[in-house]
Amino acid sequence: MTSDVRNILTALDSIGELWQPHRLASVNDYDVKVARIEGEFIWHTHPDTDELFLVVSGELTVRLRDRDVVLGPNDVFVVPRGVEHCPRATVETRIVLIEPKGTVNTGDAPGERTSPLRELD
Amino acid sequence: MTSDVRNILTALDSIGELWQPHRLASVNDYDVKVARIEGEFIWHTHPDTDELFLVVSGELTVRLRDRDVVLGPNDVFVVPRGVEHCPRATVETRIVLIEPKGTVNTGDAPGERTSPLRELD
Repeated sequence: MTSDVRNILTALDSIGELWQPHRLASVNDYDVKVARIEGEFIWHTHPDTDELFLVVSGELTVRLRDRDVVLGPNDVFVVPRGVEHCPRATVETRIVLIEPKGTVNTGDAPGERTSPLRELD
Repeated sequence: MTSDVRNILTALDSIGELWQPHRLASVNDYDVKVARIEGEFIWHTHPDTDELFLVVSGELTVRLRDRDVVLGPNDVFVVPRGVEHCPRATVETRIVLIEPKGTVNTGDAPGERTSPLRELD
């Protein structure tokens, strides 16, 4: 039994809401997620896992406490586990995330910005 | 201590040899790899892990014993663990792979096509 092909751009086009990660694919116990973002998220930390950001389109700033990391299309950046960060996008930006299953978008700072992982149509 | 930004296209441009996976980033105990491929690889299986293929440019056919899965740019496909497959590209194709650290490109069929994971410059 094999899974289906997913297209990253088609998947992103199908997402209506901002800051809502959707599952594109799974590799063992990891999820590859897509999301549309714009504006500033919240400061948070994932104490137990690294988090990979890949920009598909737009511009993502990963704010860290000591610097800002700015990513354009096809740029990849990994926030190491335990490093506090705050994603920000001044224009609509489309991203891919890679992290272990069960990783919550708001990490150690749950609240109104917490979003369960959604399934694509 | 945080890692650096990597650009997928720049990384692929820097690779000289075909069928040589290079490490783009790591997320915990997983590697995200880039490779340039053209021609047909060998039939093999990864008994213990899924393997994700993402096409950046070109066209990748993942041959399975019961069908061919054809991927274009931005398409993603996961070969489940234990499923025999043979990648093929009739034009030069640039891909991203996601799999656990230590996964060997030829899986259960080691030989002259086996390539250690390389580091980017």
